Amino acid sequence: VASLSVLTAATPAVRFAADGTALQIIDQTCLPGALVELQLTTLAGMVEAIQSLRVRGAPAIGVAGAIGLAVLAVRAAVEQPATFDATITSAADVLRSARPTAVNLAWAVDRVLAAGVVGGAPPAVRAQVMQDEAESILQEDIAMCAQIGAFGATLLRGGMTVLTHCNAGALATAGIGTALAPVYTLKARGEVLRVYANETRPLLQGARLTAWELERAGIPVTLLTDGMVASVMRDGVIDAVLVGADRIAANGDVANKIGTYGVAVLARHHGIPFYVLAPTSTLDPSTADGASVPIEMRSPDEVRTVQRVATAPAGVAVYNPAFDVTPAALVSAIVTDRGVWYPPYHFTA
Amino acid sequence: VASLSVLTAATPAVRFAADGTALQIIDQTCLPGALVELQLTTLAGMVEAIQSLRVRGAPAIGVAGAIGLAVLAVRAAVEQPATFDATITSAADVLRSARPTAVNLAWAVDRVLAAGVVGGAPPAVRAQVMQDEAESILQEDIAMCAQIGAFGATLLRGGMTVLTHCNAGALATAGIGTALAPVYTLKARGEVLRVYANETRPLLQGARLTAWELERAGIPVTLLTDGMVASVMRDGVIDAVLVGADRIAANGDVANKIGTYGVAVLARHHGIPFYVLAPTSTLDPSTADGASVPIEMRSPDEVRTVQRVATAPAGVAVYNPAFDVTPAALVSAIVTDRGVWYPPYHFTA
Repeated sequence: VASLSVLTAATPAVRFAADGTALQIIDQTCLPGALVELQLTTLAGMVEAIQSLRVRGAPAIGVAGAIGLAVLAVRAAVEQPATFDATITSAADVLRSARPTAVNLAWAVDRVLAAGVVGGAPPAVRAQVMQDEAESILQEDIAMCAQIGAFGATLLRGGMTVLTHCNAGALATAGIGTALAPVYTLKARGEVLRVYANETRPLLQGARLTAWELERAGIPVTLLTDGMVASVMRDGVIDAVLVGADRIAANGDVANKIGTYGVAVLARHHGIPFYVLAPTSTLDPSTADGASVPIEMRSPDEVRTVQRVATAPAGVAVYNPAFDVTPAALVSAIVTDRGVWYPPYHFTA
Repeated sequence: VASLSVLTAATPAVRFAADGTALQIIDQTCLPGALVELQLTTLAGMVEAIQSLRVRGAPAIGVAGAIGLAVLAVRAAVEQPATFDATITSAADVLRSARPTAVNLAWAVDRVLAAGVVGGAPPAVRAQVMQDEAESILQEDIAMCAQIGAFGATLLRGGMTVLTHCNAGALATAGIGTALAPVYTLKARGEVLRVYANETRPLLQGARLTAWELERAGIPVTLLTDGMVASVMRDGVIDAVLVGADRIAANGDVANKIGTYGVAVLARHHGIPFYVLAPTSTLDPSTADGASVPIEMRSPDEVRTVQRVATAPAGVAVYNPAFDVTPAALVSAIVTDRGVWYPPYHFTA
């Protein structure tokens, strides 16, 4: 992992502030124009940051939720020890539901909350245990990214060209990303891949974030609009598709950024492997299939505008789901930090 | 046609200025924010308007080329009768090549140029014949749209929901459009369809133009980003896809706005009919198949920005073809002003 750190953002997407009293994030809504970091100390600020996508990417919001709850617990232990339990339980509820689709957020928040259940211990001790648990989640996320990179690299080699959707890179995690992890891993071995990055409307995570972090890491990247995917595939340019996931159901159905499902259909039509790369925490065996995944619908204004500039008639009706579901039948392999899985998929608890 | 005029923009996309001395167009780069008309009297201004997509849509740029050449001929006959032939031949060459993919532009320009070849007649007479020819092309375009609407309507009925890409509506023609013509035709009969409009990056013709003209005509429209097509198709919402064409090869391969091919693949995957609607002038029997169609590559800045606001790192590499080719095998039917054609397609001169 150490050898890879130079390739990723010198500034991690999500971490504890140096003194441990704040959740520190890159404000990704300011990229690529400016690299701005925020130190969040209040529940309202954390929820706003998650809902406004200042921090985004399923693994990163999981880590943010964990650190956020730990930060709030440490403060509650000092300022309101008598109501410590109520405070952290309520904060966990609010954080857990800040975004509904990614399973990592609830998973990470619940883990930190559970760690704080230490029979008979005073709030200060329990808060410290919660802080340690959040730090563990952070370190595990970094390690998971490295593992995904190592397993994913077995499917690829230098000289290949891959296509990715949205941002499942370093900015989406505490480490070297998920979908892009093998690209960073291979780069560290001197094997360079070219990445085609879908801009990913409405919020342009591909244009703003993926293009930015790959350029910064010295990896050749070509930006395209979402409607150009079929054309570049037909040109024979793309060797594989790499995407992340927000939730993977027991049968291998994959919920991910809106547009992923269309890319999967196009990859199948052109005979291109379609790989999903995600940490084990993204697997949700309790969800039987994609039909059961709640799909967040977001504001119509995201589609009617680009970066707050109007692009359509005011008030026009809009369809704006944040995610779609790619059926397992279109997924060539699922790469987690534990290995490479091929169909048929049967994930169990 | 008269009964349909109330449904289309009261201001036509392209026409002769009232005194016949200018090409008058809606500046579509200003929509939906403002309805601005331009009167163009110089070759440089006309070429700039075509290349900057102030006037766009294969039929509309054909009419614009025809009117433009006629306007220049009338002026040359008055101001420089001695060099009339050289002026109009040179102007025709420049107009013809303003955009390479649409066959209508060259077709219309050549038709007006040929009309001016009147043995022994003075320039003023020849210019008048050219002006009459341009007026004929304009009127024929209006009539062609109405015919496409009538034939296309036989494939649809009120209550259906259709999806369209880019803008092949009234703004793309001198009449009621091509892809959207049946929607207007059925509306005039009291049969209302809902239209899902892809925003169509990079230049957002769907968001800016299709949504605008349909709202203006009282037709329900829902805007979506290009990456949402697969999702809305999987939801079972879409009954048919309607798109225009910039050039149709002899074998039925269709060159149209980038993104069309991907929509066609997705329609096939979901069992949804994919209809191409275009005037006969779009048929190019001299092009054997789609592989022979020149595909215009446009400026990287179109992808790096939205409405001149930067959305990606400056200088990032970009893939930006203006068009793609949909193989005939994915086209359920081709509707022209002469009828409905089903595969296998064999268009002859």
